[in-house]
Amino acid sequence: MSAHTTELDPFVLTLFGATGDLAKRKLFPALYGLYRNSLLPARFAVIGTGRQQLTSAEFRQAVRESVESYSRMKIDSEANWAAFVERFDYRAVDIKNLDAFSGLLSLVVDKESQFDLPGNRMFYLSIAPELFGQVSTNLRESGMTENKGWKRLVIEKPFGHDYRTAVELNEQIKQTFAEEEIYRIDHYLGKTMVQNIEVIRFANSLFEPLWNNLHIDNIQITASETVGVEERAAYYESSGALRDMVQNHLLQMVMMVCMEPPSRLVNEAIRDEKVKVLRSLRRFQEDEVHANMVRGQYAAGSMRGQSVPGYSEENGVSPQSSTETFVGGRLYIDNFRWAGVPIFIRTGKRLPEKSTEIIIQFKTMPKHIYFNRKGDLRPNLLVIRVNPSEGISLVLNAKGNSADDMQVLPIAMDYCNNCEFDSPEAYETLIHDAIQGDSTFFTRWDEVALAWKFVDPIRRAWDKDEHPIPTYPAGTWGPERLNDLLAESETHWWRVQLEDAQVVQAKEERIEVPRR
Amino acid sequence: MSAHTTELDPFVLTLFGATGDLAKRKLFPALYGLYRNSLLPARFAVIGTGRQQLTSAEFRQAVRESVESYSRMKIDSEANWAAFVERFDYRAVDIKNLDAFSGLLSLVVDKESQFDLPGNRMFYLSIAPELFGQVSTNLRESGMTENKGWKRLVIEKPFGHDYRTAVELNEQIKQTFAEEEIYRIDHYLGKTMVQNIEVIRFANSLFEPLWNNLHIDNIQITASETVGVEERAAYYESSGALRDMVQNHLLQMVMMVCMEPPSRLVNEAIRDEKVKVLRSLRRFQEDEVHANMVRGQYAAGSMRGQSVPGYSEENGVSPQSSTETFVGGRLYIDNFRWAGVPIFIRTGKRLPEKSTEIIIQFKTMPKHIYFNRKGDLRPNLLVIRVNPSEGISLVLNAKGNSADDMQVLPIAMDYCNNCEFDSPEAYETLIHDAIQGDSTFFTRWDEVALAWKFVDPIRRAWDKDEHPIPTYPAGTWGPERLNDLLAESETHWWRVQLEDAQVVQAKEERIEVPRR
Repeated sequence: MSAHTTELDPFVLTLFGATGDLAKRKLFPALYGLYRNSLLPARFAVIGTGRQQLTSAEFRQAVRESVESYSRMKIDSEANWAAFVERFDYRAVDIKNLDAFSGLLSLVVDKESQFDLPGNRMFYLSIAPELFGQVSTNLRESGMTENKGWKRLVIEKPFGHDYRTAVELNEQIKQTFAEEEIYRIDHYLGKTMVQNIEVIRFANSLFEPLWNNLHIDNIQITASETVGVEERAAYYESSGALRDMVQNHLLQMVMMVCMEPPSRLVNEAIRDEKVKVLRSLRRFQEDEVHANMVRGQYAAGSMRGQSVPGYSEENGVSPQSSTETFVGGRLYIDNFRWAGVPIFIRTGKRLPEKSTEIIIQFKTMPKHIYFNRKGDLRPNLLVIRVNPSEGISLVLNAKGNSADDMQVLPIAMDYCNNCEFDSPEAYETLIHDAIQGDSTFFTRWDEVALAWKFVDPIRRAWDKDEHPIPTYPAGTWGPERLNDLLAESETHWWRVQLEDAQVVQAKEERIEVPRR
Repeated sequence: MSAHTTELDPFVLTLFGATGDLAKRKLFPALYGLYRNSLLPARFAVIGTGRQQLTSAEFRQAVRESVESYSRMKIDSEANWAAFVERFDYRAVDIKNLDAFSGLLSLVVDKESQFDLPGNRMFYLSIAPELFGQVSTNLRESGMTENKGWKRLVIEKPFGHDYRTAVELNEQIKQTFAEEEIYRIDHYLGKTMVQNIEVIRFANSLFEPLWNNLHIDNIQITASETVGVEERAAYYESSGALRDMVQNHLLQMVMMVCMEPPSRLVNEAIRDEKVKVLRSLRRFQEDEVHANMVRGQYAAGSMRGQSVPGYSEENGVSPQSSTETFVGGRLYIDNFRWAGVPIFIRTGKRLPEKSTEIIIQFKTMPKHIYFNRKGDLRPNLLVIRVNPSEGISLVLNAKGNSADDMQVLPIAMDYCNNCEFDSPEAYETLIHDAIQGDSTFFTRWDEVALAWKFVDPIRRAWDKDEHPIPTYPAGTWGPERLNDLLAESETHWWRVQLEDAQVVQAKEERIEVPRR
């Protein structure tokens, strides 16, 4: 959470991986979006690096193509574009070669002189994670980090492969950057509605009194994709959904929803509270994993009537692969606020719908009283829709629209966050925060470490499991067993469908409500 | 609150005042609406009475014109219409003439025979209130109420002119009808969203924990009209807004919002709790009236650019009239739940907008913490829109839609009850309830009595007040002094404006929110 800043520090951004996919699809469009919204400082420079040999003209053309293809804003005028892109330059760098960093340093110094920049340097690592440590070391040894202004390292996931490797990586990076100089990206934390969670909770007197195990029955967090593994098999085979989604994005959402009110709404105070959630998160021993976590791998199936192959038939995937493409689970936070409230999570590929959402299911009304004489009254739900639809819905019970009698029906009160205006891309928000030096929505080391400590025993249990990995047909919501975990807690997954949303399988109880 | 009934009792409805305005605008259309929705019993008859001499054919034609002009449903087929209207008959009756009632009885008996009706008789008094007692007596003395089935009296407001006259009237009616046979209409209780209050409160686990003085700062109830006195000067001059609106409609809404959860959701249990609200309602002594209640009379002004005359210039109004066309006030319910929570009410004619709504203002977040460091965070509001727009809005604070920073803005989650489907007219609901014998949404004698006891001292204080009645220009929200009462409680009237709603004067803080 950052105060409104009027003046941003001029800086040089050195981007490692400037010819890569993330730069093309997300980072250049984000920089352009910030530029167009006057959210970059008046003076800045961007230096792209990569293995490829590119001229500055070629690089600028690549930036233009990226913006034209992926930005939420169209290029408005050639003059304005020229003023933007003249800040971009390129230098081919072999990351393992210290001399290359000396050359890079000369370019940085040149740009600082050319654009009258005071020496603030941001390094953005959009490269293979095994190179993070090397780059960090070379930045130091080349003298790049002996600068006059601030230095910041922005680093993409994954941060390590497990707790041990994460510690190793962190030790290496710490040689060059202090913890407060490290901005570990979890782009889910850049999403408007994830950032909105703390506002919903702490700027409204309505919710905080209800935000505990007296009033909340369970929490359901879904991050589902419709795509398969696509071009990412090489990475995904060694990662799987547990490392790719649960260790970071899903646990981050759990922390945002469940943290205690911080002492102040500033970055370290907020991250202190988030970490406390992970400290209270019940850690499953290897022999408890099966009872609480569900893995799955998509088999051949169909997505909206189209046949699609199973994961093990995908390009680059071993036919014997036991990599999970789906993880579900029932988590518990063993503290006073959340004791006894199950937090159900699920994430996977080739699910029926692309959707990230958080549902707070409130306690059901007691049976036998009032409108719940038959025990069929639906519970109240607060739905925080993160992606692609953004908004908040509150499902309530109300009188039906008839003179007849007191038929009670679920209704949804709805607020749509991106129906009228685009939200900023997560990367815009996060890059802007990093420029401001606001690390609230970046992952602190102790969060990373504790998340791995939660994930590692699950990983080990699954790696040791001699049963074949359960499969689910592409286009379904994952292995049936996850539903059993919810049924044990007398609930099921809720899908609150606004009228124009697509239809999902009948398995899930749907509440169809008018958009207005 | 009624259970879903499959079988309704056949009955004869005898309507006094069948040539009157209410019958034409509301009652015939309501009967037709019920008929079309299969909410009348298969066998029934309607006998209209009035001073006019009409043939049955003329009467049926009048019913048709009423339905064609005022029903929310078009006549679908001539055959269906014929089947409906053949139940209607007419008899001219001089209410003061007992013999006329004997003639009426013969017709009722005829119809019971013709339509095979078991003797259930409903009498609906849509006539001048000074005749209520006489009709009631004549019904008894003519033998009309010595019937085989049930008998019910449906009676329009006003029930008395003050506590004393209400007691007299009640004593007279009690000679013929037991309390549980008397259905005193308050048509606000027939409105869908007023009936929804108990569902919102008691079918949702979200609200009841917040429904008290720990979480609610104040309650604001508005019932505003844009029209002036129109053709009703004769009645209105002796009534005024206090008797016409506050004694019944506004206090009924106060009761619905503030009652304790009843022991069961059945009529007497609910009305027991409503009465308790009136018992706890702080009764102002005559010398306390000025400090808590505000009266006003509209002066000449303009409504949407059109000049309109003042009340004292209207046809049939004395130029020296001191009748109030506006009442505002600050009420307190002195019980554990509501101690210290002011309930602001206002009702009037020639106000800028036609609107009935209830706003629950929740406590403001404490100052200095989090998003309220400047003390400018808006409170949460629950808005129950009764008329003409029906729905529920919840005004919350959320993050603004910018990558910039944590700008916190009010948003509204909205549910519209009559955007897609018409709601039934209040009279449909109420007549249906009366046929079923469900008196939940009718006013019990003790409610009437206590409401007059609250109103009478206010009336006396104003009648004795030698100051001229304060005026307000037509097209404004009444005397300024009412705003001072809210300011004393550190609040002001809220207007939650959905985008397509009309603009109101700048005096009131408006929250404009997108419809979706």
